[in-house]
Parts: sequence; C-alpha cells; structure tokens
Amino acid sequence: MAEIRKDLLRDTWIIIAKDRALKPNDFPINKEGVHFSGNDKVCPFCAGNEIHTPPEIAAYRDKLSRANSPGWTIRAIPNKYSAFSLQNELKIEHTGINQSRTGVGQHEVIIETPEHDSELHEFNTDKIELVFKMFQERYLALANDARIKYIQIYKNRGIFAGASLVHSHSQILALPMVPEVNKGLPKYYEMHSDCLICNIIAQEKALGSRVIYEGDEFIVLSPYASRFAYEIWVLPKKHQAHFGNITVNERQELAFIVKQVLGGIIAILGNPSYNIAINSAPINSGKEKAYHWFVEITPRLIVTAGVEVTTGLYMNPVSPEVATQIFKEEMAILLKE
Amino acid sequence: MAEIRKDLLRDTWIIIAKDRALKPNDFPINKEGVHFSGNDKVCPFCAGNEIHTPPEIAAYRDKLSRANSPGWTIRAIPNKYSAFSLQNELKIEHTGINQSRTGVGQHEVIIETPEHDSELHEFNTDKIELVFKMFQERYLALANDARIKYIQIYKNRGIFAGASLVHSHSQILALPMVPEVNKGLPKYYEMHSDCLICNIIAQEKALGSRVIYEGDEFIVLSPYASRFAYEIWVLPKKHQAHFGNITVNERQELAFIVKQVLGGIIAILGNPSYNIAINSAPINSGKEKAYHWFVEITPRLIVTAGVEVTTGLYMNPVSPEVATQIFKEEMAILLKE
Repeated sequence: MAEIRKDLLRDTWIIIAKDRALKPNDFPINKEGVHFSGNDKVCPFCAGNEIHTPPEIAAYRDKLSRANSPGWTIRAIPNKYSAFSLQNELKIEHTGINQSRTGVGQHEVIIETPEHDSELHEFNTDKIELVFKMFQERYLALANDARIKYIQIYKNRGIFAGASLVHSHSQILALPMVPEVNKGLPKYYEMHSDCLICNIIAQEKALGSRVIYEGDEFIVLSPYASRFAYEIWVLPKKHQAHFGNITVNERQELAFIVKQVLGGIIAILGNPSYNIAINSAPINSGKEKAYHWFVEITPRLIVTAGVEVTTGLYMNPVSPEVATQIFKEEMAILLKE
Repeated sequence: MAEIRKDLLRDTWIIIAKDRALKPNDFPINKEGVHFSGNDKVCPFCAGNEIHTPPEIAAYRDKLSRANSPGWTIRAIPNKYSAFSLQNELKIEHTGINQSRTGVGQHEVIIETPEHDSELHEFNTDKIELVFKMFQERYLALANDARIKYIQIYKNRGIFAGASLVHSHSQILALPMVPEVNKGLPKYYEMHSDCLICNIIAQEKALGSRVIYEGDEFIVLSPYASRFAYEIWVLPKKHQAHFGNITVNERQELAFIVKQVLGGIIAILGNPSYNIAINSAPINSGKEKAYHWFVEITPRLIVTAGVEVTTGLYMNPVSPEVATQIFKEEMAILLKE
C-alpha cells in the first residue's frame, strides 16, 4: 500500500510505494545506457496479451468481444504497480513531527491503441478525440468519489519523459489531496477576484509574440515563463474549471490541435521524449472558482539537473518567443499539407 | 543576458537564457539515444585545454604555474553558457501582469581535477576535502556581494542527472533572490521557534530506522519523505545556517562521508547518474535563523515523469527504510576494506 508522507522541508507530499521496494537491479536506467524494459519482452499492452494486465476498468470494444480479450480500441486498466486504491481506508498517522496518510485513490493506465507501434501523434484526429473521450469518462467516474480531491491526467512518451513502456498509453491519477503546484491560480484569484489564465489569454492575444495558433475554442501559446524548452500550453478560451466538462466541439478541436502540435514537436525537435498533462481544478473541495483547466505539452530535451531538483528554479535555454517563431513556421507547413 | 521571469501559475521564478536560444539540433539528447557531447571532442576541462574555457576565477595550482595554463589541481571558471553576471544592473520590468528581472548573479563551474577520467567518488579523502575547500572559498567570496541572496552548490554526474560533460565538475549558482523550495524551514521556525533539521536529527537518532551512519560532526540518513529512490541527506549535527562557516574538522569528516556514500551508491546501484547539492541559508537577507545547511545526494535512477513535473508530487518506489538497510550493509563492507 502507498503511504503519502509529508515532506516538512519542501512543505509538500511524497508518495512512497512501501510494498514495492524496488531493489537496485530493478531500475530501467543506469549510467551504462538506456535499457528500455518492455521492448524485448511480451508487451502487456498489446492486443492478445490482456492476461498480463489487471482486469480492465473500462474499454471501447466491439460489441461481440468480451472484457479482457481482444476486440478493443482503447482500454482503461489499473496501474499494476500502483499502491493507490479506493478500497483503502483514509488513515492519518503521526510519529513525532512526521505525518503520513494512506494511499486512498486510484491510478489508471489508458492504453490508447491495441497496436504496439502506433503512437498518439500518429493517430488520426478522430482516434485522438476518442482517447480524450475516455479521459473524460474516467475523470467523471473518479470525480464521483467524494474522497478524491484532484485528478491528474498525463502521458509520458519516451525514456526522458519517464516512460517505462513504449506502447502508447496515458495515465490518470486520482488523489486524496490537492497538490500545490498550480498554487498561483488561487493566489491570483484571492488578490484580483479574477482568473489568472483568462488574463493570460487576453494579454497574450494582445501581444501576439507568444501565440502559436488560435482556434474557435482554444489558444495555443508558448508560456511567458516556460520551464522547459519548447513548452506549449493549450488553453480553452472559455473559462471552465474542470476538464470533465469539456464539450464535444472542444474535444474535436483539442484533438486537431494536439495532433498538429505533436506533429510539430516531432518534426522540429527530432522525435523527442515528451509529456502531456491535463491540468484541472481540485474537485469535491469547493475551490474551483480560481481554476481554469488547460493542457501542457512539454518536450523533454534536457534532463532536470541538480539545480532544478534542489532549488525548484528551472533554467530554460530557449526563450518562448524564439520557440513560438519556430513552431509557427512549422505549423504553417503542417497545416498546408 | 538571462532574464528571470515570474511564473504566475506556479508562483515561482524561471531563468530564461534569452541570448542563447538553442536551436532544435543543439540539444544533447533525443529519443534515438544518448549523445553525450564532449566525449568525442576536445574536452575544455582537461589540463592543456584552458584556452577553451573563460578565464579562471580561482585555482589551486603550482606556485610556478600561470593562471589559465596547466599546473592546477582545482579550477573555478565562469559557466560559459551562463547569462548571469555581476556586471548586470538589477532592473525589474513589468509588462501587464508579467514581471521579470535581470540576471544579476554568477554561475561558476568548479573543475575538480585536471584528469579526464577521474571522478569525484574516485578521489582520495584529502582531494575531496580540497574540492569542498574551493566550494567554501567561492561561497564566501560570492556572499560578499550584498545583491546575492542565495548560493546553490551542486553537482550533476551522468546524463540522467543533467550533466552535459563527463569531466568531473560541480557548479555554483549565486542568485539575486531566494528560491522557494526549502520553504518548510522558515515555516517550521515560525510555528515552533525551532529548527526543523535539528528536530529531524533528534527524532531520527531516537528512531534509528533511517540512520545510515553517525560521525562526530554529521549524521547520514535516508529522509522520511525521500523524493528519489535511495536519496541521502548528510546533516551537520551542530546547528549552523551557512555552509560558508564549515570548519576544517567538519570539512574533513564530510569528505570522508561523501566518499563512503558515493562508493556505496556506485557499488549498490550499478554506477548510476547522481546529483549532489549543498543547501544553505539565504544570505544578505536576515533570514538565516530558520535554516540549517546540509548536503543532499540523490541517485537518479528514474526520470522525473509527467506526474512529478505537473503536480510536483514525487513518487518514490523505494521506501527510505529499505534503502537504509541496503546502504548500512554496503557501508559496513566498505568501512572494513
């Protein structure tokens, strides 16, 4: 079972998978090079290998096919190595100055395709939209549990983005507490009674130098204080706290945008590792007013080094204004094709 | 010149190296594999190649040798790619809701040895102590500038720790503001009028399950809320805010401990990438009471993935209690040798 421990030094929480206790030789990487587990072995995410995963939670599949057998296009399963569970009882434990709580929550994997060699950025727009539809359904199902306070949807693609399997997949983590990282949103709301992201959109539209693309529903930009080189935000123009409320129209446009942006990243940056994250408001906590959901796409060209890890200050060698220019040129080519 | 930009969303600062503007092909890594720049080319950190670095700031060298020529054992130079400079004028700029300031500061590289193939963990204890002596001297020199508010000393070893050159080196970053990451220390002090780290030491000594080694001056432990698998803290037992005040005795014991710990990490974890960080109090800001300097050693066995990057919540698959057991056994062997 996971234990969520209070990190008093950093004033945050750390998730410790107590029963997993990886031994030194269990890690996928070491200095000698990259050992990408899952490449040589049976891939548990391929059609026909359903027996190698925990039983599915949801799937889009042929009507005639049975659960946990081939015939699916998208499949949601529990993360095999997660120690989060909704069966856990919420317990808070104190030992001296230390504090921990049980891992009440759920950690799911969304297998995006039954095919081993097809990646999200290679799907057509309809298929990408279907992946987002599954994200939305799982989000709404998990948000129904009042003990869940925050849901993070994210994708790790490639070894430098933290992926341990190559087969195209995303993850959903439903947590019993609100992480602190987007704390600027409630802070801005408290000071200005207004949404930070709505203000960012208005300002960036007026300036123009960091706007890559604007559609009916979304605006795509390089954030002013990009943490990563070529980081991109996709912001819904309509103020909306929760990703769970995304409309069909929005889902369709988001799929189109994500396909173009990933195509641009792959073309420009030489097929890099990347993360995608869907950041949404806390749930079941009455705090949504300050929040505005959005999508963050971060190529992982540089490993977070000692300075980022210890100070939390990111050093970015590419200004977002330069990145915007490069993306705009590439996306103009992609959109013409 | 660097620009330090306010990240309103995360409520932190991002350092953007505006004039560097790396192009897509300038990055050392991509999905195809690891290209470790500096392996094939002339190494600028080797003896004889001093012309390839900016002029040295300080060096331990033979009395008869000249600056920026061979004859040195340890050399401090400006980081070639840094846009921080103490020549910069402190300027704060506002554009709408955005805020930036100029990169007043200094970013130095400490080349730890003239030899290309000798690494910190292979040095003898006296040589490691000499590296710490250079750290201390540079720390004290930089702390003399009242515009400097925080000094981070850190080492990136190996590609997964963010190193871009293999030749053994560390870095010192002198910043014009205090990063937020150890914010638990002032928070604890405000609540308890007491030092968090002194309390951690007392509690861990009483419990014992996370203590790896105790010397006269330092205690070595796996922190209760370890962010990384096999993360280690080396804590001075005497309450002291600033690394700059380390005594000769402490420096000698610290060198001995770092050699043992790194030896343990290399032996146990298969020669992994690692970071070392020396965390100290803010300077020139009257805030030191709440702080207690310490050394953090983090093997980098797992890449920070989408969940860490977006939520700031670290998932650690190895409990610190298990890591302590494994380290204690290995260190008992090393200390007998």
